[in-house]
Amino acid sequence: MSGTTSPAAPIKVVVWGENRHEQVEQKVRDIYPTGMHTTIKEGIEENLGAGVDVTTVTLDDPEHGLTEEVLAATDVLVWWGHAAHADVSDEVVERVHRHVLAGMGLLVLHSAHWSKIFGKLMGTSCTLRWRSEEDREIVWTVDPTHPIAQGIPHPFIIPAQEMYGEFFDVPAPDELIFLSTFTGGEVFRSGMTYKRGFGKIFFFSPGDQDYPVYHQKEVRKVIANGVEWARTLRPERSVPVLLRYDTEDFYNGHGYQGAMEN
Amino acid sequence: MSGTTSPAAPIKVVVWGENRHEQVEQKVRDIYPTGMHTTIKEGIEENLGAGVDVTTVTLDDPEHGLTEEVLAATDVLVWWGHAAHADVSDEVVERVHRHVLAGMGLLVLHSAHWSKIFGKLMGTSCTLRWRSEEDREIVWTVDPTHPIAQGIPHPFIIPAQEMYGEFFDVPAPDELIFLSTFTGGEVFRSGMTYKRGFGKIFFFSPGDQDYPVYHQKEVRKVIANGVEWARTLRPERSVPVLLRYDTEDFYNGHGYQGAMEN
Amino acid sequence: MSGTTSPAAPIKVVVWGENRHEQVEQKVRDIYPTGMHTTIKEGIEENLGAGVDVTTVTLDDPEHGLTEEVLAATDVLVWWGHAAHADVSDEVVERVHRHVLAGMGLLVLHSAHWSKIFGKLMGTSCTLRWRSEEDREIVWTVDPTHPIAQGIPHPFIIPAQEMYGEFFDVPAPDELIFLSTFTGGEVFRSGMTYKRGFGKIFFFSPGDQDYPVYHQKEVRKVIANGVEWARTLRPERSVPVLLRYDTEDFYNGHGYQGAMEN
Amino acid sequence: MSGTTSPAAPIKVVVWGENRHEQVEQKVRDIYPTGMHTTIKEGIEENLGAGVDVTTVTLDDPEHGLTEEVLAATDVLVWWGHAAHADVSDEVVERVHRHVLAGMGLLVLHSAHWSKIFGKLMGTSCTLRWRSEEDREIVWTVDPTHPIAQGIPHPFIIPAQEMYGEFFDVPAPDELIFLSTFTGGEVFRSGMTYKRGFGKIFFFSPGDQDYPVYHQKEVRKVIANGVEWARTLRPERSVPVLLRYDTEDFYNGHGYQGAMEN
Repeated sequence: MSGTTSPAAPIKVVVWGENRHEQVEQKVRDIYPTGMHTTIKEGIEENLGAGVDVTTVTLDDPEHGLTEEVLAATDVLVWWGHAAHADVSDEVVERVHRHVLAGMGLLVLHSAHWSKIFGKLMGTSCTLRWRSEEDREIVWTVDPTHPIAQGIPHPFIIPAQEMYGEFFDVPAPDELIFLSTFTGGEVFRSGMTYKRGFGKIFFFSPGDQDYPVYHQKEVRKVIANGVEWARTLRPERSVPVLLRYDTEDFYNGHGYQGAMEN
Repeated sequence: MSGTTSPAAPIKVVVWGENRHEQVEQKVRDIYPTGMHTTIKEGIEENLGAGVDVTTVTLDDPEHGLTEEVLAATDVLVWWGHAAHADVSDEVVERVHRHVLAGMGLLVLHSAHWSKIFGKLMGTSCTLRWRSEEDREIVWTVDPTHPIAQGIPHPFIIPAQEMYGEFFDVPAPDELIFLSTFTGGEVFRSGMTYKRGFGKIFFFSPGDQDYPVYHQKEVRKVIANGVEWARTLRPERSVPVLLRYDTEDFYNGHGYQGAMEN
Repeated sequence: MSGTTSPAAPIKVVVWGENRHEQVEQKVRDIYPTGMHTTIKEGIEENLGAGVDVTTVTLDDPEHGLTEEVLAATDVLVWWGHAAHADVSDEVVERVHRHVLAGMGLLVLHSAHWSKIFGKLMGTSCTLRWRSEEDREIVWTVDPTHPIAQGIPHPFIIPAQEMYGEFFDVPAPDELIFLSTFTGGEVFRSGMTYKRGFGKIFFFSPGDQDYPVYHQKEVRKVIANGVEWARTLRPERSVPVLLRYDTEDFYNGHGYQGAMEN
Repeated sequence: MSGTTSPAAPIKVVVWGENRHEQVEQKVRDIYPTGMHTTIKEGIEENLGAGVDVTTVTLDDPEHGLTEEVLAATDVLVWWGHAAHADVSDEVVERVHRHVLAGMGLLVLHSAHWSKIFGKLMGTSCTLRWRSEEDREIVWTVDPTHPIAQGIPHPFIIPAQEMYGEFFDVPAPDELIFLSTFTGGEVFRSGMTYKRGFGKIFFFSPGDQDYPVYHQKEVRKVIANGVEWARTLRPERSVPVLLRYDTEDFYNGHGYQGAMEN
């Protein structure tokens, strides 16, 4: 894998959209006429301008649009999925996982909490409680110095949203940035970061196909901040490896040849 | 899944041993004549006595000894593997994973850092640097109030050991309890806890087939402490699930029926 | 300082009550006729019975009831204060601080977030947003395997309470156990643990002099769980010290004699 | 307090040097002829060039050089002290503490682990074990994606150093970046971050008056990285405050008027 990152270069972002609701449900098409992925893309561009180079791919593209070539050239992958998690091929999930461990940033949005790739990275069921009844969601910042929280009002309000509530079965996050409350009284850890391998992951729960959440200014700003944060600062793209080191040689590891009688 | 836990009852522990080195290598057989799993079992019994009910199973048992019935009756599973991680069936790994999320405790020892089950729970490569050249390992406590650190000298010394060194590609732990240094100058996060689902996981790196580590008093005490800590306090064994909740009904979730047009 | 702890012995608990509102405000006296500290004491006894030995002291006692002798014999100190934080003498705060670092457990309840001792242990302003307008508080568990969460319904509801909201200026906790939401839509990290020195600290926000919160079953259970958790497992009570160690002598530290030309 | 930060502007750094050893000990003067603070300053400038504006102040300056005006214009304060912690006035410590909570970054170097300001921010004794016998220190990275670890070899070696060893009595860090081992076999958490209020704190242990550590390239790079990381991204400098909020008014807090009969 070759890396693409240079701090001065635009961040190469790929927004992956499931793009199924948009094809089947008129309600969703009305809110996102060019697809949710396109709206998410526009929100990132709106905030980061020339600092970013955003493309979109969808589930129905060959290899879901996530070939080795595409991933090798991607700094940050943004993932939205909901109805068709099971249709994502295990081979592509393995490939994305490898690139995250090698340093590709990953933003996991809303119902992608139940995507194969997020489950594989978390190791848990990633289940939660939910209800789609137009609750008002209020998003509060609990880590005000975090880069992802910059420029975000405390709190900000999403007028109507699907409720996501605890217990959310994920590992305790490295950083808890946002908490959301809902009209019904539920609470959710709605903005969290994780590091896995050399990759940085940001989970952000607002966003649903039935509400115009990705048109909302604050949500777009959070996602853009997340993209900037998730881009690796390491110069090369490579997965961590298991290596043998001789005594007093700290820098030249040897490949692993098998465990028995080594 | 039915649970077995009652705080007053003995902790039901299963020690899973790969048991391959012992069959093939005389050196290992000399150190662990009845198998490493047996020595680990005896160390737990030595410390916890009537408070524990320990059995052993190995890779070569049918279903690796880890049937649904066995796991349902296990409070804490202790895992040692090294040469034959690949021989563990994916089906059994899925089963163990489900039981961990449902509340079964898991101790991951030494080279089991590269086992399928640990990788699945961590979401990372779990790689590290290593060298088996009789380094002295010194184990230091950095979380002195942790239950697992009680009764453990600070530091304690393992006269000869395989070196495991950083970078160890695992998620930042929930709790960092022990750090190890080696003669060569390497360092390793050697005692760490994680929670996944309703299960508690303790990784402890000392222990190798080529050294009598599991005969050492301090190591046995740490493992016994880990067993006590990892036993769930929850009364029932069940995996977290995704459920819909009506407004103002906080306790009666409804099963999930599919994402589209829900 | 001599320690008192033996796992088999009852936990020696001291509930420290400010006891000012009860003297001045009839409303508070109606809810807590024998003082809030007494109600808190009774809640602990109700849950832990013979496993605990609870006494109470108040601000108006000599040395606020917290002499060296009392603290040396205390496993866990429970602190409730509100109107008179400034009246607590700095000398007593220093003494309590020293005992926490030496291993005494500390429960910090509700408005004690702004007590001198909590501020000294946290290093932050411990400020928050608040409103006392009979909001309904719903307490959610986000760390379901934590000992303090055992036996606590998810969620549980406090019918009327003072609102405490984020941003709560405290360090990121070691463990986040409970989150609370309020009728007005605010959120608060309401149950958190910290370790400082050899001491364990549990902050729990429900509880106010104007509401019968400490009469509520679930709140009493949480506090009792907190008491059990906060009791140190270390056999001796001593503060961490700075010591010089000779090479290869890991166990015999020498006292510090001054930094210059040492 | 007015803020000074604009992401485009040079980072305003003040290096605070105790500057006592340099006056009294020829050995230290030989290593740091213009004072340790000057060497630290030069290391930051060497790495950040025009991106930084560094000045130095010392203990013997009026108000230790840390007037309200100086602090209000400082983005990041770097602190080195050892022999004269007790000579730092409590008033100045309070002032620095307030500015950290308001958003000023703070780097705490080596023996400043025992400074008043670090103790006040941590809430613990900040004690450790030590020995100054020319141990070789090896610094390992355990958080390879952290901004502070960028460009730092894994590991890097300090040929001769004072040993600092665990147990280091500080709170569990928000982020553990570096671990150090020493010839004698000791280990130390040598690079850690903390957030307090709106301020970001980086503790880095290498550096002693008796060794030319601050002349070493890797150490200088770490400190420069720390300076960049610790600069706040928030536009204003203000301390967190306790405020009352009316129902449904999330943005206009009211000042606090006293706890009794509020």
